[in-house]
Amino acid sequence: MTMVDVTAKPEVYREAKAKGAIKLKAETIRLIREGKVEKGDPFQVAKVAGILAAKKTSSLIPLCHPLPLTGVEVELHIVDDSKVEVETTVKTRAQTGVEMEALVAAATALLTVWDMTKQYEKDAEGQYPHTSIQELRVVSKVKERRV
Amino acid sequence: MTMVDVTAKPEVYREAKAKGAIKLKAETIRLIREGKVEKGDPFQVAKVAGILAAKKTSSLIPLCHPLPLTGVEVELHIVDDSKVEVETTVKTRAQTGVEMEALVAAATALLTVWDMTKQYEKDAEGQYPHTSIQELRVVSKVKERRV
Amino acid sequence: MTMVDVTAKPEVYREAKAKGAIKLKAETIRLIREGKVEKGDPFQVAKVAGILAAKKTSSLIPLCHPLPLTGVEVELHIVDDSKVEVETTVKTRAQTGVEMEALVAAATALLTVWDMTKQYEKDAEGQYPHTSIQELRVVSKVKERRV
Amino acid sequence: MTMVDVTAKPEVYREAKAKGAIKLKAETIRLIREGKVEKGDPFQVAKVAGILAAKKTSSLIPLCHPLPLTGVEVELHIVDDSKVEVETTVKTRAQTGVEMEALVAAATALLTVWDMTKQYEKDAEGQYPHTSIQELRVVSKVKERRV
Amino acid sequence: MTMVDVTAKPEVYREAKAKGAIKLKAETIRLIREGKVEKGDPFQVAKVAGILAAKKTSSLIPLCHPLPLTGVEVELHIVDDSKVEVETTVKTRAQTGVEMEALVAAATALLTVWDMTKQYEKDAEGQYPHTSIQELRVVSKVKERRV
Amino acid sequence: MTMVDVTAKPEVYREAKAKGAIKLKAETIRLIREGKVEKGDPFQVAKVAGILAAKKTSSLIPLCHPLPLTGVEVELHIVDDSKVEVETTVKTRAQTGVEMEALVAAATALLTVWDMTKQYEKDAEGQYPHTSIQELRVVSKVKERRV
Repeated sequence: MTMVDVTAKPEVYREAKAKGAIKLKAETIRLIREGKVEKGDPFQVAKVAGILAAKKTSSLIPLCHPLPLTGVEVELHIVDDSKVEVETTVKTRAQTGVEMEALVAAATALLTVWDMTKQYEKDAEGQYPHTSIQELRVVSKVKERRV
Repeated sequence: MTMVDVTAKPEVYREAKAKGAIKLKAETIRLIREGKVEKGDPFQVAKVAGILAAKKTSSLIPLCHPLPLTGVEVELHIVDDSKVEVETTVKTRAQTGVEMEALVAAATALLTVWDMTKQYEKDAEGQYPHTSIQELRVVSKVKERRV
Repeated sequence: MTMVDVTAKPEVYREAKAKGAIKLKAETIRLIREGKVEKGDPFQVAKVAGILAAKKTSSLIPLCHPLPLTGVEVELHIVDDSKVEVETTVKTRAQTGVEMEALVAAATALLTVWDMTKQYEKDAEGQYPHTSIQELRVVSKVKERRV
Repeated sequence: MTMVDVTAKPEVYREAKAKGAIKLKAETIRLIREGKVEKGDPFQVAKVAGILAAKKTSSLIPLCHPLPLTGVEVELHIVDDSKVEVETTVKTRAQTGVEMEALVAAATALLTVWDMTKQYEKDAEGQYPHTSIQELRVVSKVKERRV
Repeated sequence: MTMVDVTAKPEVYREAKAKGAIKLKAETIRLIREGKVEKGDPFQVAKVAGILAAKKTSSLIPLCHPLPLTGVEVELHIVDDSKVEVETTVKTRAQTGVEMEALVAAATALLTVWDMTKQYEKDAEGQYPHTSIQELRVVSKVKERRV
Repeated sequence: MTMVDVTAKPEVYREAKAKGAIKLKAETIRLIREGKVEKGDPFQVAKVAGILAAKKTSSLIPLCHPLPLTGVEVELHIVDDSKVEVETTVKTRAQTGVEMEALVAAATALLTVWDMTKQYEKDAEGQYPHTSIQELRVVSKVKERRV
């Protein structure tokens, strides 16, 4: 097994954007909107978690190269009464791309929203019939030769 | 902000199962089936990554409690020519549930499949128009008083 | 060298509170008050960082035992035009105390406030003549035999 | 929230020095001086802990960039019968400064001294009325264009 | 104590290969050969563990510099009825060598083989009279000025 | 793949001792003896590294359970002019044994000795013809029903 040899590849500007969504109950969305989630502000915590996770990508995804990330952005917004969306942007100047970093940040941010709101999403039996993470994808990848 | 105080809750048997899927090209599915993915066996690597990630949950999701996991299982299978599914099971005897651990394991396993197969999923412009993670959810949660 | 053997000690309720402060410029305090710190809300980020750091204590302080923390709280407030204070509370049921965890959470929260506001604290030469962390201490420790 | 984009900044030599102190009882200082601290040599353990912590900075302080540290030094000395001082130096060639790394190393070294000596610092009630970390600050920052 | 200052050293191509072996019972070797190890394929898991460990070297070995590894390879093979051998290759373009990374990867891969097969290696008293790791060494180091 | 389910196993006292050795040049052994190793005291640093590594075992060895270690001891001594030996002891009260923790601590301590002395072990071509880690093994395992 091999973490692919990229020694000979040039260091160029790399950027990746990922998106994803979490389906939540209308009641949960209302609590987020009104700033009433008991455990704290889900978007603030999710942004921090997403940024930290981007930096851990090469220790989570076994064959990812450790990369010197030069920028990470995590934004969350309420789409409608049933959905919260995350968008992440990761930048570097490196020998390989950062799409996995953008995806890891997005996945972790969405999972953090789940964790912050799980008391409202559970039904009487403690199950989560409504909650799911959807459409986690790379929306754009840029590779530029800046020199 | 508070990592909720669970000191007074009894330690009971807890179990959670999560599921999720990744949409891949038919050609990629064929390569997985035939054991021809160049970077290594995606399912083997994804299982290891998922199990390790379950154990890192409390360092990824800020308000999760550190829990002494007593069992973690990660299984992957090909659903059809466009989809791979993961199912995870996490067990503990603790004061709080393990659904976040099951979700983190499932998300990390799916992201690892993406990373292992990304050279086949990219189009000529290096974009990923077909690939996405879908339906990541908790399929069951068990809380039992064993004593 | 020894991580002291605590096998024979009973598992009892443990709690520790720590406090500490960071001296900042009046202008920086004003920006925090008005929610105008460009990098994000310093207190939100510091709280998340403090909670995550509490859980990493045994990997930062070499002879600390890994403990199953059951509660972590990190609060920050502006004392006056020159000072921000943090107060942390850590709880567990374990064989040894959690004062190091409370201190690590407090130190990390204060260092995060520094990082979030450092562009306002630097002088024209890029030095920090006004900024310092002070009075980091344990304010109370509780050890109770609950059984 | 954003880990600030530093992609366009040039990689230049960076250095930061931090200092800080821990107040200890005269009796504890005597034990350190005479090499009689039961858990091991507090300065040796603190130096190792400080160096390791410098390398973890970007996983502790959420918006810090991961930097390829090229040098880390941690020194400790007894100031007088009530105080131990730490001085750290961190070096890199990078797009952003290393003052947070120097501070994290200093804070962790001081907290390790506390942990190594805590059995002597506690009073009969298990409280720490004398112990505190003080004056943690950046003493100099260098940014040089070596090219 | 000092993580040696390498700021002034040029970034050149670096490569290191390490080897090591684990002595196992003939019966265990047979189970590996026939793919009947109950916990999973020891070589697959060991390869993943070795690659991940290489990337953690600077957090395990205190005075190692964090390096941007550009390639990691871990291979395992059965030598004879009593021995499994690992060979690792680590590559980078950096200011210091990667022999510690190659050794850490090899040691972790061998320890993982042990963990995967330990139920067969234990005797009736739960002891390991036959199992040992041997001959862990650096087989070659390359330092090249590519420019 | 499965991190074996140990939920039903009783928590009992567990202890494991591991040993291992590193072969070094006579000249290097002399420098250790005389306290003249330039990078610092190899045994002090190795002990700290070994203790920290024991606590990371479940993140290094994929199918190891996270265990609440209650004691870790790492000792090193010079055997003769060609060999340094490490002995580790790990204790817990848990559902599964700690032999992997003892081995990980021993391996990491030996690798740290290597790193601390590598400048003296290299030959003129930068190779390590004399250095190797040998005889890494579990010397005893204890499992006791204390209740």
